[in-house]
Amino acid sequence: MSDDRIVILAHEKFPDRAKTALGVMRYGDQDVRAVLDRDRAGDRVHDHVPDVADAPIVESFADAYAAADGDVDALYIGIAPIGGGFDESWRSDVEAAIEAGCDVVSGLHYFLNGDEELVALADEHGVDLVDVREPDDDLTVATGASGDVDADVVLTVGTDCSVGKMTASLEIVAAARERGIDAAFVPTGQTGIMIAGWGNPIDRVVSDFTAGAVEDMLVEVGDDHDLLVVEGQGSIIHPAYSAVTCGILHGSMADGLVLCHAAGREAVHGYESFSLPPLADYVDLYEGLAAPVNEASIVAGALNTKDVDDDAAAAEAVTDFGDEAGVPAADPVRDGAGRIVDGIVEAGLGEGTAAADGGVADE
Amino acid sequence: MSDDRIVILAHEKFPDRAKTALGVMRYGDQDVRAVLDRDRAGDRVHDHVPDVADAPIVESFADAYAAADGDVDALYIGIAPIGGGFDESWRSDVEAAIEAGCDVVSGLHYFLNGDEELVALADEHGVDLVDVREPDDDLTVATGASGDVDADVVLTVGTDCSVGKMTASLEIVAAARERGIDAAFVPTGQTGIMIAGWGNPIDRVVSDFTAGAVEDMLVEVGDDHDLLVVEGQGSIIHPAYSAVTCGILHGSMADGLVLCHAAGREAVHGYESFSLPPLADYVDLYEGLAAPVNEASIVAGALNTKDVDDDAAAAEAVTDFGDEAGVPAADPVRDGAGRIVDGIVEAGLGEGTAAADGGVADE
Repeated sequence: MSDDRIVILAHEKFPDRAKTALGVMRYGDQDVRAVLDRDRAGDRVHDHVPDVADAPIVESFADAYAAADGDVDALYIGIAPIGGGFDESWRSDVEAAIEAGCDVVSGLHYFLNGDEELVALADEHGVDLVDVREPDDDLTVATGASGDVDADVVLTVGTDCSVGKMTASLEIVAAARERGIDAAFVPTGQTGIMIAGWGNPIDRVVSDFTAGAVEDMLVEVGDDHDLLVVEGQGSIIHPAYSAVTCGILHGSMADGLVLCHAAGREAVHGYESFSLPPLADYVDLYEGLAAPVNEASIVAGALNTKDVDDDAAAAEAVTDFGDEAGVPAADPVRDGAGRIVDGIVEAGLGEGTAAADGGVADE
Repeated sequence: MSDDRIVILAHEKFPDRAKTALGVMRYGDQDVRAVLDRDRAGDRVHDHVPDVADAPIVESFADAYAAADGDVDALYIGIAPIGGGFDESWRSDVEAAIEAGCDVVSGLHYFLNGDEELVALADEHGVDLVDVREPDDDLTVATGASGDVDADVVLTVGTDCSVGKMTASLEIVAAARERGIDAAFVPTGQTGIMIAGWGNPIDRVVSDFTAGAVEDMLVEVGDDHDLLVVEGQGSIIHPAYSAVTCGILHGSMADGLVLCHAAGREAVHGYESFSLPPLADYVDLYEGLAAPVNEASIVAGALNTKDVDDDAAAAEAVTDFGDEAGVPAADPVRDGAGRIVDGIVEAGLGEGTAAADGGVADE
């Protein structure tokens, strides 16, 4: 689905509260023909977000379809209310998309495939309802096969949730490709899956299959690239989400780790009674836990400085973070991920068979 | 369901290949009225297993019902074929039990509640089909509430799968109760759940809810006892199952850990290309990973010596294991769990409010 011509629904939330829409526009290969936001209808994307492809912002799917001359393959739900429910004010747009022969792609907790009306309409029009949070039902336990793929595997690991692991992963892939490395992104969460157009939602699979669901993806694409960058989730010391983090670490059998942190974060987000340990403890924990399955070092660091207003202060925070972790570091959004790719390459990763054979970057 | 008068189905597998049946008979509070095994009909349980309550072994549910004078509340499925399927040769017994007004309790992967014929029959007779592997649908993410329960929490952690964590946990509870400590077992797997009569099957829950499903149980019983012994799963370095292990570690917020190992085990069971690291590495990993959520030390060790024939060699293996881990150790099956409870008590655990108040052991 990553080559689709798409319309993104972001009613009343574009751009600041439309994380999925912005992620797809910034990092996806999709051709975004229009954005639905009834509050900003008549504006252009570039009026609000200058660094992505421009497109009209319109009031309804009918307007978007007309603006795109009918060249639309899919409607993406690009926003999520708290709780991940389906807002009934979206229904007329979703129905119009189905009636126009478009697939509908959603990362909501609410499954479109559980909505009898939408399912009946989709059947009638021969289109797919894609719930990216619904795991494949053929997933199973890991076998250790991730260790056999041709690609080198880098995993972003965090000091906490919401420190920018997905963004860091995508920026690393972009920077590696600019350097001629055949790199690919391996998504593990719903936004990453909507951007990449494939993937298993690791936090929704049966817990016994956590590592297996990662392995399933690595086996699928691991022989087609020189470097896979796996989107990490949570943190290994998170009171609620560490299971997912641990399963991704062992399921990916990563060769290198990129430690991601948010400047100024001192306690677990939403669990403020739990303090974050020193960075050195994370290095020991992630490397120590990885080693019995596959030796892996922290090879670079990504610091999210979005809460640091001043460029000089942000640069200083990045320098301090890299010094403390003992690896090359950058804020991938402010600085690009060049220095992070330096760390990956210095560790001998990403220079695989295909590159040695003169293979070119996969775009 | 733990006070039920029950019949256990173990056709063609009693006792050696009927792990669940034996677990319930050895550790459960259920009153076992008969065992179904068509290959051994006419024998008594004591002909094969001397250290559990005796009962007749019969050919069919009808025979069991007659032998028990109709005093039967439930039929337990006490065996599992490879793959966890439902053997059609059991159907007549299951139907007879339902028709006699009995609930049916199963730990199979195959859900009785997904079998239309059995569901219809159960509805007709007003009985419950209990699939212990099917998680509650109201589970959610952990909040950190395990840290607030009155009981001290001990978790069995392993060097690998299948090293005897469930048995160790149950023996620790038994030995603690003998010492007057109000201890309770917190099950996390299907056999443990059938023995205890309650619990969440942690390996089947949504991965994001792994820790939350443990917390849910601890909150339910944590203020009613002085010591909770949580059944661990897998191992923190297991290539496939470490996610479940990590979620239980952080979800339980354990105060003390009992390290479980099988004598002679050198590689991951079923994943023999992965060597087990030295015991000291496990101590560092489990304690290091626990600390940011709740400080916990390895306070005792349980060594499974079932593959060691000679008592003297087994005793030596236990001594070596305890010395290497630096804690009191025992084989809970060969020796009982007294020395393990020593380690727990020496760490200051299990002597809670109720004991200080002169509370008596909960049997």
